[in-house]
Amino acid sequence: MTDRLVVVGGGVIGLSAAWTAARDGWRVTVLDPAPCSGASWVAGGMLAPVTETWPGEEALLDLGTESVRRWPEFAARLSAAAGRDAGLRTEGTVVAATGSGDRTELDTLAGHLDRLGRPVERLAGRALRRLEPALGPDVRGGLSVPDDLAVDNRMLLDALRAAVSAAGVRLEERAVAAVRDDGTRVLGVTDTAGVETDADAVLVAAGAHSSSLHPVLDGLVRPVKGEILRLAHRAGAMPPPSRTVRALVDGRPVYAVPRSAPGHDLVLGATTSENGFDTTVTVGGVRDLLRDAERVLPGIAEYALVETTAGLRPGSRDNLPLVGALGPEGLVVATGHGRNGILLAPLTADAVGALLRGEPVPDPVRAAAAGRFAPAVSLTGGQRA
Amino acid sequence: MTDRLVVVGGGVIGLSAAWTAARDGWRVTVLDPAPCSGASWVAGGMLAPVTETWPGEEALLDLGTESVRRWPEFAARLSAAAGRDAGLRTEGTVVAATGSGDRTELDTLAGHLDRLGRPVERLAGRALRRLEPALGPDVRGGLSVPDDLAVDNRMLLDALRAAVSAAGVRLEERAVAAVRDDGTRVLGVTDTAGVETDADAVLVAAGAHSSSLHPVLDGLVRPVKGEILRLAHRAGAMPPPSRTVRALVDGRPVYAVPRSAPGHDLVLGATTSENGFDTTVTVGGVRDLLRDAERVLPGIAEYALVETTAGLRPGSRDNLPLVGALGPEGLVVATGHGRNGILLAPLTADAVGALLRGEPVPDPVRAAAAGRFAPAVSLTGGQRA
Repeated sequence: MTDRLVVVGGGVIGLSAAWTAARDGWRVTVLDPAPCSGASWVAGGMLAPVTETWPGEEALLDLGTESVRRWPEFAARLSAAAGRDAGLRTEGTVVAATGSGDRTELDTLAGHLDRLGRPVERLAGRALRRLEPALGPDVRGGLSVPDDLAVDNRMLLDALRAAVSAAGVRLEERAVAAVRDDGTRVLGVTDTAGVETDADAVLVAAGAHSSSLHPVLDGLVRPVKGEILRLAHRAGAMPPPSRTVRALVDGRPVYAVPRSAPGHDLVLGATTSENGFDTTVTVGGVRDLLRDAERVLPGIAEYALVETTAGLRPGSRDNLPLVGALGPEGLVVATGHGRNGILLAPLTADAVGALLRGEPVPDPVRAAAAGRFAPAVSLTGGQRA
Repeated sequence: MTDRLVVVGGGVIGLSAAWTAARDGWRVTVLDPAPCSGASWVAGGMLAPVTETWPGEEALLDLGTESVRRWPEFAARLSAAAGRDAGLRTEGTVVAATGSGDRTELDTLAGHLDRLGRPVERLAGRALRRLEPALGPDVRGGLSVPDDLAVDNRMLLDALRAAVSAAGVRLEERAVAAVRDDGTRVLGVTDTAGVETDADAVLVAAGAHSSSLHPVLDGLVRPVKGEILRLAHRAGAMPPPSRTVRALVDGRPVYAVPRSAPGHDLVLGATTSENGFDTTVTVGGVRDLLRDAERVLPGIAEYALVETTAGLRPGSRDNLPLVGALGPEGLVVATGHGRNGILLAPLTADAVGALLRGEPVPDPVRAAAAGRFAPAVSLTGGQRA
């Protein structure tokens, strides 16, 4: 009999892993009350490990670099399996600074990348505007990072849904309340209606909702709200940039990710706040995003504001994801990806596939081992997990 | 046989007039492709002739004053007929000024009202904040105008729909293409599918869409776009004001109208632009409204932004509405109300009722006679309409 895998969570991480596991021969069921929604739906879709990094976050940079390297092949295989474009954009990324403090900060980032042996191209404001004429006169300088990519997260979700379906994965619209185990091995899950689903292995990929699903996950992931706006270009307005534009505006980060799909020509993000499972879009959040994005891309004043949304990033304690076996035998987790879930999806799916086959995970994923926060047990018995 | 009236337009003006005519014994059919939508749905719902006025607009002030005087009885009758609250709020209005130029402008308005024998109370910033603690420290002074009221336009639409239904009015979701006549009298209307509806009288109350319905209306009404935001109070945030707050912020007008209904606690408006029948909500419009409203009511930063919409005000050439008989016998128009459609609904409905009965309109409505822009005919034949 084929082994049964239940995946809790039908976002980008859960579906990517489900697709991998199904191709490895698992009989996969994905449970999610609203598949393809949540943070995966709200996201901006940047695949930008270099322009996201900061001194002290080298392990995350290694993870992101390895995953972005896998993205083109992942997207090509996914597009072929789904029979539709997975939405990858390879135009690259520019980073723009406005005030002098912002330029100093970008210099720090560039110097840090130099020391890591990953030099980036520094450009004056005028050179940056030659690359992206949509950048306004307040942009005084920045960086060009052609290897930081982007993906249309909604095209990606559509492709993943089609690919898992073609691979025989069952997608059921049910909310899981808890992972069941017998103290040693996982037995399956129980949904919020009390219905049990048996499984030989369970993957928890429920994003910000993961912590409540099993006691070993308690407190490991918290919701970090992000507000995002979607704009549509209007006739007569300045065309959107062709690259992802990241910027610092008086110390506040803002980004604008262009889309190929009509109607959502530019995605602006993202605020960061922590207020539990609240997904309200606030006046202050919208005001900040519009003000800062207009400083960098003044032509967007004429764009249509077509969508305001907020999602909950799954935040971990150290900003690295949690990918690995944890607790009872057969339980695997893939959560805590913070703002990097879509970037890290191909590498996470490969790591989950390896874990389910009993093989070692790709090297950079070892820093994300799910057990790294396990409490030390008493000195008189047992041992450190 | 009862006389048949076709009303073109199922907004506040059309439904108010239809309700009046039905009570007068007309057999009324209202045609609208989407009743209770458009500018009536988008509107802020201010009933504020005094704080809206400006030197040179005395005829409009007279119209508004007479209509707001009729509002409480109109609302009471409507609520009784509909079996539901029509949404009138009688807390009054304050006007707030920020910069010194804004205070000078309010002084001009107050002086103008003094000379008209309609004195308003001038208040310093501190006194204004005692009335409305939500006003921020940038408010330096203003006016209190208790007789300028407000109505929840969506509660009003719900009540009008119920009342016309109870009065036997037929409401059909069809778009009218043209008013038909035989050169002397109206015959009815033709819808966009070519279906004809016969009538003894036709009321054109199609707002910004009125101009194309008959040659005599050509060029008399144009669409004037207004963008509006709806906010919801969140736990822990400053409560919304109890009165309508109008303000001038560096010369730009902005208003905030509180709502009783939960979920839309505050309506912020409104931008003004002319770009044909475009109802796009723009980045620049939202940015302006949020920035200016926050200067006056800083606590709204914590509110949820729950809706962004744009409507098309029916603008006339002189900012007065067009209410009266025009062209072929049996054609009555009630349009061109600009930003004052909801304010002027009771008076307009009374005027239309009088016109349909062959009686004179209420005095202030004479300035709004629909024929005032009729072209002078050739000097050799005919006469001025």
